[in-house]
Amino acid sequence: MSLLAITTAAIRPLDRTAMAAARARQDQLTKPQGSLGRLEALSIQIAGITGTPRPCLRAPAVVVMAADHGIARQKVSAYPAEVTSQMVLNFLAGGAAINVLARHVGARVVTVDMGVAVDMPPHPGLRIHKLAPGTADFTHEPAMSRTTAQLALETGIAVASDLIDVGVDVIATGDMGIGNTSASSAIVAAITGRTVAEVTGRGTGVDDAGLERKIALIAQALARHRPDSTDGLDVLAKVGGFEIGGLAGVMLGAAARRVPVVVDGFISGAAALIACTLAPSLQPYLIAAHRSVERGHQAVFAHLDLEPLFDLGMRLGEGTGAVLGISLCQAACKILDEMMTFAEAGVATGS
Amino acid sequence: MSLLAITTAAIRPLDRTAMAAARARQDQLTKPQGSLGRLEALSIQIAGITGTPRPCLRAPAVVVMAADHGIARQKVSAYPAEVTSQMVLNFLAGGAAINVLARHVGARVVTVDMGVAVDMPPHPGLRIHKLAPGTADFTHEPAMSRTTAQLALETGIAVASDLIDVGVDVIATGDMGIGNTSASSAIVAAITGRTVAEVTGRGTGVDDAGLERKIALIAQALARHRPDSTDGLDVLAKVGGFEIGGLAGVMLGAAARRVPVVVDGFISGAAALIACTLAPSLQPYLIAAHRSVERGHQAVFAHLDLEPLFDLGMRLGEGTGAVLGISLCQAACKILDEMMTFAEAGVATGS
Repeated sequence: MSLLAITTAAIRPLDRTAMAAARARQDQLTKPQGSLGRLEALSIQIAGITGTPRPCLRAPAVVVMAADHGIARQKVSAYPAEVTSQMVLNFLAGGAAINVLARHVGARVVTVDMGVAVDMPPHPGLRIHKLAPGTADFTHEPAMSRTTAQLALETGIAVASDLIDVGVDVIATGDMGIGNTSASSAIVAAITGRTVAEVTGRGTGVDDAGLERKIALIAQALARHRPDSTDGLDVLAKVGGFEIGGLAGVMLGAAARRVPVVVDGFISGAAALIACTLAPSLQPYLIAAHRSVERGHQAVFAHLDLEPLFDLGMRLGEGTGAVLGISLCQAACKILDEMMTFAEAGVATGS
Repeated sequence: MSLLAITTAAIRPLDRTAMAAARARQDQLTKPQGSLGRLEALSIQIAGITGTPRPCLRAPAVVVMAADHGIARQKVSAYPAEVTSQMVLNFLAGGAAINVLARHVGARVVTVDMGVAVDMPPHPGLRIHKLAPGTADFTHEPAMSRTTAQLALETGIAVASDLIDVGVDVIATGDMGIGNTSASSAIVAAITGRTVAEVTGRGTGVDDAGLERKIALIAQALARHRPDSTDGLDVLAKVGGFEIGGLAGVMLGAAARRVPVVVDGFISGAAALIACTLAPSLQPYLIAAHRSVERGHQAVFAHLDLEPLFDLGMRLGEGTGAVLGISLCQAACKILDEMMTFAEAGVATGS
């Protein structure tokens, strides 16, 4: 059996016993029942994921996977392709938004070169798993082979597993790759059945003409490759990206080890769609952090039956929304674990 | 001149120069312009509040003001009135939701007895400014005198000022007081002109019959007292609460010292309405943390032209939403201060 097959088979349903215990405790804490809303539900979900009635998330990490995209040559982005590698260097220097927000919430940043076009210098903060110097341009040919798509997923599984081995107990996903909203829109259209126009936005900020071109190119590519909407590997191979496959693997690898996954924005959402076609049992392990401005994101939530925690009008990627989501997950768990019960605090209960 | 008059006169417009500098810097940071959405706008607002182009919020505090309400004798809450004092003890013991969430974001909790019905034991974490052992039942008589209403506001101003003197640089507001959603609904109806039914919810969780009674009692009280919607002191005196007046004072006191105020839920919102009638210049100093489940909250936002940062279905009070909002304010400021610019990071800019 492949690592991918072993991993998807290892994803179990949430632990109902732990969830019931968490629910019972929430209802004894010194607050009106349900008055902490999503934080209560989140703590119960995390109890189910981790299989512990009072989970603590002490060692968060955000995995930022970077890769280049052949389709970037078609000018679908407001930024030149070299920005992918330049931003990886920025991540390693600690100067990007994800570094700032990860420091704020106490999460480590793990940057992974899944297929950046240029060679990246060795750096202790960088894992190099370059599958190729960027995908092929999927407007002309499949983005990658099916074998490479599986390798992308298995690389993500291995990255998650390594982090969990050293104690990481919650993983956020992040992405960097000029052109990757195009790949993500193609994936979302392919898997959800929405039209390309419905799920394609401005990415880094293309103008009206650019958006029209982007939609036309993606629609042509889908018409040419006809990816199988039920087969995540096929979709990934035909119109995906290395970082997107890697993030799908991270999600599967984390869930197989009962570690919660905080999903960032649109690109991470596309990865989640791919991962869930391979293992529908993944869904309850996913915590959608935020609603992105990128218009296709809503189709992801609808298809996966996820509801994001917040909407701050963000559309940056990198895991910036996801790390803020980690902080809310930690807050939810601390509420469950640290608050006193009515009995402990000597507070009268409600009528 | 009274402390109240001096304070309201001291609230200046936001610093446009600092805001322009913050905006200019945001646009040079290594991200597509505007891609961090509300976080960018928030950083610019805080620059304007503090008068510094790269503000840092290092010492947050949440002021939790507690008081009892005469109207609680009318059984408008699902909890008995003694819960107010019991919860104050819980705050001091560190076992309440606000303690957990304040620890999570690194904020100190300052608990203030503004008028709890029973005497509270001395405690280093408790400030005692008891105006009376609870308000009068405003269904029969004004909740307090106009003089006491002013004293509540001035006490809040002094509390904020003391905290700022010792270095606190962002203040969140929180409340505890069985019966205080009734007072808040009365305030919101009086000031916004909405009907009582529109702005009255279940508070801690009264049933349908309880909600109907609550609405009828508040409507009768407003008909009897006819508070002047343009005079916050009159509204506070007739249908308010000591903690609500205190929180309004905290907001004014913070704004007068150019310190951002993170406003919690419905009760804090009612306090903000009172404060803004006294000083309309307060509005830009307010940061609405979250949208509460309590139905009248929306009327507060509409009247004050505020948009909450998030909606997690919370309705607990205590400042629980506001401290999570503090963390977002800090994140916003760190983005502005710590991210590298395109030039610094050697990243190509967009087209």
